[in-house]
Amino acid sequence: MSPFTGSARRTADWEHLRLQIADGVATVTLARPDKLNALTFGAYADLRDLLAELSRERAVRALVLAGEGRGFCSGGDVDEIIGATLALDTAQLLDFNRMTGQVVRAIRECPFPVIAAVHGVAAGAGAVLALASDFRIADPSARFAFLFTRVGLSGGDMGAAYLLPRVVGLGHATRLLMLGEPVRAPEAERIGLISELTEEGHADEAAGALARRLADGPALAHAQTKALLTAELDMPLAASVELDAATQALLMNGEDYREFHASFMEKRPPKWQGR
Amino acid sequence: MSPFTGSARRTADWEHLRLQIADGVATVTLARPDKLNALTFGAYADLRDLLAELSRERAVRALVLAGEGRGFCSGGDVDEIIGATLALDTAQLLDFNRMTGQVVRAIRECPFPVIAAVHGVAAGAGAVLALASDFRIADPSARFAFLFTRVGLSGGDMGAAYLLPRVVGLGHATRLLMLGEPVRAPEAERIGLISELTEEGHADEAAGALARRLADGPALAHAQTKALLTAELDMPLAASVELDAATQALLMNGEDYREFHASFMEKRPPKWQGR
Amino acid sequence: MSPFTGSARRTADWEHLRLQIADGVATVTLARPDKLNALTFGAYADLRDLLAELSRERAVRALVLAGEGRGFCSGGDVDEIIGATLALDTAQLLDFNRMTGQVVRAIRECPFPVIAAVHGVAAGAGAVLALASDFRIADPSARFAFLFTRVGLSGGDMGAAYLLPRVVGLGHATRLLMLGEPVRAPEAERIGLISELTEEGHADEAAGALARRLADGPALAHAQTKALLTAELDMPLAASVELDAATQALLMNGEDYREFHASFMEKRPPKWQGR
Repeated sequence: MSPFTGSARRTADWEHLRLQIADGVATVTLARPDKLNALTFGAYADLRDLLAELSRERAVRALVLAGEGRGFCSGGDVDEIIGATLALDTAQLLDFNRMTGQVVRAIRECPFPVIAAVHGVAAGAGAVLALASDFRIADPSARFAFLFTRVGLSGGDMGAAYLLPRVVGLGHATRLLMLGEPVRAPEAERIGLISELTEEGHADEAAGALARRLADGPALAHAQTKALLTAELDMPLAASVELDAATQALLMNGEDYREFHASFMEKRPPKWQGR
Repeated sequence: MSPFTGSARRTADWEHLRLQIADGVATVTLARPDKLNALTFGAYADLRDLLAELSRERAVRALVLAGEGRGFCSGGDVDEIIGATLALDTAQLLDFNRMTGQVVRAIRECPFPVIAAVHGVAAGAGAVLALASDFRIADPSARFAFLFTRVGLSGGDMGAAYLLPRVVGLGHATRLLMLGEPVRAPEAERIGLISELTEEGHADEAAGALARRLADGPALAHAQTKALLTAELDMPLAASVELDAATQALLMNGEDYREFHASFMEKRPPKWQGR
Repeated sequence: MSPFTGSARRTADWEHLRLQIADGVATVTLARPDKLNALTFGAYADLRDLLAELSRERAVRALVLAGEGRGFCSGGDVDEIIGATLALDTAQLLDFNRMTGQVVRAIRECPFPVIAAVHGVAAGAGAVLALASDFRIADPSARFAFLFTRVGLSGGDMGAAYLLPRVVGLGHATRLLMLGEPVRAPEAERIGLISELTEEGHADEAAGALARRLADGPALAHAQTKALLTAELDMPLAASVELDAATQALLMNGEDYREFHASFMEKRPPKWQGR
């Protein structure tokens, strides 16, 4: 537990998602398979709050986001989100959309890598949750679709109009967000939308293996790599180089860097401590 | 007609390009086929003024930009632009180059998607007009060339040094802008420079079909998607997420979102109104 | 020699790299082949100082960066950098990391294109030197590896977390910087990390030919293209378009633009002067 923990207690029971934590790896499963893991107000709120808790606790060094059943996540539930938002007033609509954006910011800003394990459909908000993750490990059944315009909304939802051009370039991003057409695994690989293509049915397993490797490795180096990638998208070159210099000076004072050198001299694998 | 129309009248006759408007789709054709549609001072000025008129009138929901004859556009005319600029003073040179940049800004900022239909050559300023468009639909004869250094000028012309790295990445962009070498359709597809590759001779038709689809669809959602893609290239993540939230809250109060839900419940296609 | 030269003299002898200058083309060779050209404090300092001298002198119009022996550059030397930094205090660590960042800024900001000729390994800081170059010309033996996390450091080193997402997109960049896995020539070509793939053993030759072509061409146009590409990564669209307009107005007053028009009228090749 981090020393920077105050009065707030851990949430004992996450009602809208499934959480497992094992030796530094958190696995968060969207578990509403009869609805293709369609998101609800509660699921968004739980993702927001869970990521905040895990970020302050420092008990986790990597996180897998997966979906149970036939697909990853079909996006906002037609009844429980689209129908429900039709009854909200303007202030509530803004609150709802800020909450979904907070989930994306939490994924980009949490101090550990997030790995989306994608099989089947990753649609609408489900596609954006995968997009915001650091790694997208997909099997050949994966199908991404940024469906927002298909329901009369903006393709720029939850930061998608910020993130997608920075992942696949402005041309592909415009086409995908404007038209909402599905991107299947081969195209996703070709345009750089996925990090790794596995064999059919192996996305969860590969994501778990990567999370384990990241958690067992120099986890502070991984966390800082992520933090710099996130920050430097929004920074000029000169400031980025200065941030890199300060970060490396910090990590050169750390235990893992010293351990690397010792292990190299002793011709043995390093024992990473993540600090 | 938009209520936000004042005293300025529509231009009755565009002398330097051809304009057709049909049911929300504008088709702008560069029509100087004997010169491969080389641009003149007048053509730039007409593009700048036409886009301003169409943007304030709100009569158009999608625009196709096409070239008549053997190619899309060969860029600035050697006599009427290169020769003519040699006689301009410094203030006039700045005015000319600001005008060409205003055309690119107008393409990126107009409240409807712009679809470039490219066959044959798209060179120099012609390549940048296509690059600034939201979609580039090309047939196998398409050949893009950012020729500026070949005439002794900077590859960063009309925003090309801003846009091209954001479409194809900094490595490809440096090569294309520095060397001015032609990019043929297969490479253009591979590096993400085109949105769709059609069969020979079908770029205009495919562009028209896409424009029709966009104009008949949830056009306000499309316009906002474009606006966010354009704006968020220049915005940090946190602000982008806030802009997305405000935009979705706005559109969730709109008619098309309500219509989507009704049509889904009634198991029928939505009747989009574009608002 | 530039008129903007003061009291500082040229360095007579570069001890930590090899420099040749021939008719406007500088060739900088990392020449410690027994150590795979591993970098030392001295090599970084020489790169920083050499680029500053060449930038102020204006004697050079293109630069090739190459490695002698079996590879391009294996990165920071395990003894002379990793071991040595373990003995530095915090202020010295910051100075070291600022120096390496200054080399990257100098490569991006010098007023001539830089061409990395890569064969064999380009690892750690060696990979970043290539990444910061304007062109990466590689042969099939090339192998890029951003190894920083493998030694317990941040993948964001010397601007890599700024540059790599802008070259290959955020998805690939995250994978490469977080995991440090090697990228071989075919993948490097596929994701846009290299500018040109040559036959085995021909990277140096092809880089030299490109440098010659650039130096003999409209070199001021090339220099400005590079300057705009570098600057506009950090600028919004409207400001970029204004910078382009001012730059083109400037170059339209230059000799090479006038020469292009004359040569075109006279149906002969232009004689570029680089101004």
